Amino acid sequence: MNSGPIGVFDSGLGGLSVVRHLRQLLPQEDIVYFGDTARVPYGSKSRQTVICFALEAARFLLQFEPKLIVAACNTASALALDALVEELPTPIIDVVAPGARAAAAHAGGGAICVIGTEATINSGAYPAALKALAPAARVLARPCPLFVPLVEEGRDCRDPVVTGVVADYLREVREQGVRALVLGCTHYPLLRDAIADFLGPDVFIIDSGRETSLAARAALEEAGALSPAVRTGSLSCYVSDNPQRFQRVGSRFLGHEIDSVEFVEPERYISTAIGQHPA
Amino acid sequence: MNSGPIGVFDSGLGGLSVVRHLRQLLPQEDIVYFGDTARVPYGSKSRQTVICFALEAARFLLQFEPKLIVAACNTASALALDALVEELPTPIIDVVAPGARAAAAHAGGGAICVIGTEATINSGAYPAALKALAPAARVLARPCPLFVPLVEEGRDCRDPVVTGVVADYLREVREQGVRALVLGCTHYPLLRDAIADFLGPDVFIIDSGRETSLAARAALEEAGALSPAVRTGSLSCYVSDNPQRFQRVGSRFLGHEIDSVEFVEPERYISTAIGQHPA
Repeated sequence: MNSGPIGVFDSGLGGLSVVRHLRQLLPQEDIVYFGDTARVPYGSKSRQTVICFALEAARFLLQFEPKLIVAACNTASALALDALVEELPTPIIDVVAPGARAAAAHAGGGAICVIGTEATINSGAYPAALKALAPAARVLARPCPLFVPLVEEGRDCRDPVVTGVVADYLREVREQGVRALVLGCTHYPLLRDAIADFLGPDVFIIDSGRETSLAARAALEEAGALSPAVRTGSLSCYVSDNPQRFQRVGSRFLGHEIDSVEFVEPERYISTAIGQHPA
Repeated sequence: MNSGPIGVFDSGLGGLSVVRHLRQLLPQEDIVYFGDTARVPYGSKSRQTVICFALEAARFLLQFEPKLIVAACNTASALALDALVEELPTPIIDVVAPGARAAAAHAGGGAICVIGTEATINSGAYPAALKALAPAARVLARPCPLFVPLVEEGRDCRDPVVTGVVADYLREVREQGVRALVLGCTHYPLLRDAIADFLGPDVFIIDSGRETSLAARAALEEAGALSPAVRTGSLSCYVSDNPQRFQRVGSRFLGHEIDSVEFVEPERYISTAIGQHPA
């Protein structure tokens, strides 16, 4: 066993939808979460900047000596995984690979659609992962940039604006007869019911938060690093801005109240020394 | 006269809708623009963080020895104006005061509505400015957080998603019988036709970009700092991320192509030294 926590980072509060599954599957583990709420979102930004921000977030977590780091952000997973693996001394689990594996397994040879932020879709990371797993599968990818602000505004799945936007984005996807759809952004599980209602019961919907948590549990088991099942793990959250908003909005992602949120000053996570940033 | 440029900053590319009016009213002036596209948007962030980011943006502009700085961002104007005025050696024009003055002048004693980002509306800056100018006026304020991503996605005013969201946000405003509406975010002029169609011809709509540009011209005239009318001014843009996206999306705000956009590394605008950030 290893008594270190699981470190989790995200561009903001979306990663709490991954933490929700981590806590269900691994209730004995301590979790330390960093949400980069000062610079959220990552999904409209360049590869270079996302790599820089993701490395800063992961480095911030290293002070807690995590036994595993989860990149609970599809944009960071899609654009910065190689840089994270190269730099971090800690094993890392991203959200793209587990979601892609589940999609390939559930599509039964049919078409697969991935929805996500502009940056995640433009990166081509999901189609690349899916091609490796299911070379014959037809893969569609669709950016849905309004989904994040719809969720952050607190709209639910019955809201007519939500159902209108879901129909606008997914009309063509529905016509293409896909078999599996990956929610390739940690905000999207909160719109799952609206998406499922629109696409109908024949489309299997994959929440990468659950798949990622299963992958995290398997990795810890394999390394003999699970904490004793008798204890109850803690959740400590750190954010680069607006802890009150994080606490208020984040509880919807987590499914319960958030007790501990600490504001992190820029000096504690930004590394502006020349040479620290990828060219 | 003064041969320095006009400095303009914004959280991203929205401020180009102000630059559009500046260039129409003051075609002889050079303009240097900084868009903080690495950390956009400011509208969902805390006062403390918006002050920090706005000061960094304005300090970046000082190297060009501007004769005037325009805070072409409603969120920065609403939350950081005092800090900017206190720190900057350069005269500063914000977008809130000119918009409020125009609203008070055009409402004819009727109700005034301000729409803007979550942070702008929560700040109460517009109602405070309006109360000082028109103490008897009834003032409504409504955050419209989906408008920015709708514009950035490239949707136009006839898009059914746009008209649906406009109706959702402004239904109550229409029922309240307002006389003037302030577009309190530099993205919103691109949705002007959809907003005007929904509210009808009796509501006077104020684009703070135009009002701000008039205020800038008046300030330069008063200081005897206008450039000679015979010359044609230049526009130089600097961004903290994604110059290609800025060039592509920004041209819709500016009304023509953007020639010169330079990427600015974090070292050139971030000041992480302890003590530089407001507590």
